[in-house]
Amino acid sequence: MPDFAEPLARLITEFKRLPGIGQKSAQRLAFHVLRASRDDAEHLAQAVLDVKDKLGLCSVCNNISESDLCLFCRDSTRDPKVVCVVEEPHNIVGIETTREYQGRYHVLHGALSPLDGIGPDRLKVQELLAQLQSSAAEEVILATNPTVEGEATALYLARLLKPFGLKLTRIAQGVPMGGDLEYADHVTLARAMAGRREI
Amino acid sequence: MPDFAEPLARLITEFKRLPGIGQKSAQRLAFHVLRASRDDAEHLAQAVLDVKDKLGLCSVCNNISESDLCLFCRDSTRDPKVVCVVEEPHNIVGIETTREYQGRYHVLHGALSPLDGIGPDRLKVQELLAQLQSSAAEEVILATNPTVEGEATALYLARLLKPFGLKLTRIAQGVPMGGDLEYADHVTLARAMAGRREI
Repeated sequence: MPDFAEPLARLITEFKRLPGIGQKSAQRLAFHVLRASRDDAEHLAQAVLDVKDKLGLCSVCNNISESDLCLFCRDSTRDPKVVCVVEEPHNIVGIETTREYQGRYHVLHGALSPLDGIGPDRLKVQELLAQLQSSAAEEVILATNPTVEGEATALYLARLLKPFGLKLTRIAQGVPMGGDLEYADHVTLARAMAGRREI
Repeated sequence: MPDFAEPLARLITEFKRLPGIGQKSAQRLAFHVLRASRDDAEHLAQAVLDVKDKLGLCSVCNNISESDLCLFCRDSTRDPKVVCVVEEPHNIVGIETTREYQGRYHVLHGALSPLDGIGPDRLKVQELLAQLQSSAAEEVILATNPTVEGEATALYLARLLKPFGLKLTRIAQGVPMGGDLEYADHVTLARAMAGRREI
C-alpha cells in the first residue's frame, strides 16, 4: 500500500485484523485517530493494553474479572442457588440484557470439539465441579450454544453432574421471536414441536 | 454498564467513540482484543500512538507524511506539471485507486464554510500559492467535494489562481456509473446535461 505513510499504513493493517473491519472501515478508523487529539489516541492505546494487563479470570466462575472475584460472584444480591453455565464470557452479556436472570454464572471458555482436539480437560470443567461443591447451588442451567459442539458439551456436563443430585436444565430451543415458520430450518422446527408447552 | 469489568467497559467505550462503531461492534472488538495475545494488543496500541507521534504534514503539499516530503512529492516519476487540490488527505486515497492520475497533490485540510467560521485563512491556501510558485505546475485540478462548501472553495480558488495564467480545471459532475437516471437528483442531472460531451 504505497498510498499511505508507513505509520498510517501500519495502523490500517492493525485495524483490519479486528473482526468485521475491512479495508475501507480500517482507513476511516485510522484517519479518525489521525485527526483525534494526542490524548484521545493515548486513551485508546491505554485501554487496549489495560484489557490485557488488568484483567484475569474470576477464581470462582472463570468470568473475566479485574479482581479475584468477578462482578457477579461479588454481588451478594445474586442468587447462589442457580448457576448458569456458558461457553464464553461474552455470552453473559447476552443473558444479562434479558434482565430476567438473577443467579450466578460459570464460564467454560470453549465447547467440546474432538475434531479440534478440544476435550473436557481444555475447558473449565474441574473448576465448575469445584464451584458447585463449594456453593449452595441447587440448579445448573446449561446455556451452551445451540450448535453441535454446544449440544455435545451440554450432554457431557449433564452426565457428569447427574450424581450430584442437582436440578439440571437446558435453555429452550425453538423458533426465534419475530421469525417466520416458513424460514425455520427443520431441526429448529422439530425442537420447537418437541418442546411445546401448554398455554 | 455493570456487566463488564472496568478495563473492558473502558475499552468498549473507547471503541464506541470511533466512527461507525456501535455498542455491539465495540463489544466484539473488545472481546477480540481480550482473546488476542499481549503482543497483538501492544502492536495495535503502538500503531495508534505512532500515527499521532510520527506523522506530520508534507512541507510542500500538506499531505500526511512521516518525513519532510510526502510519498508523492518525493516520487520523481510523478508529473510536477499537474497539481490536484483536495480537501482532505483521505481524498488522495480515492483518486489513487483510479490509477489514472500521475500528478502531484495539494491538501487544503478543509473547505470554505463561513457559517462554521472557516475562511481561506483556516485552509492551506497560502501553502498552495507557495507550492505553485516554486513548482513547474501548468494545470491545477480542483477536486474538492461536490458539496456547497466544496463548490465554494473551488470557485474561490479559481478566482484566486486566475492571474497565475495556469490551466484551471474542475472534476466532472454528472450521473455516477452504475446509477439509474430515475434516482438521480435534479441538480446532478442538470450538471450531467450541462457537462455533456460528444462521443
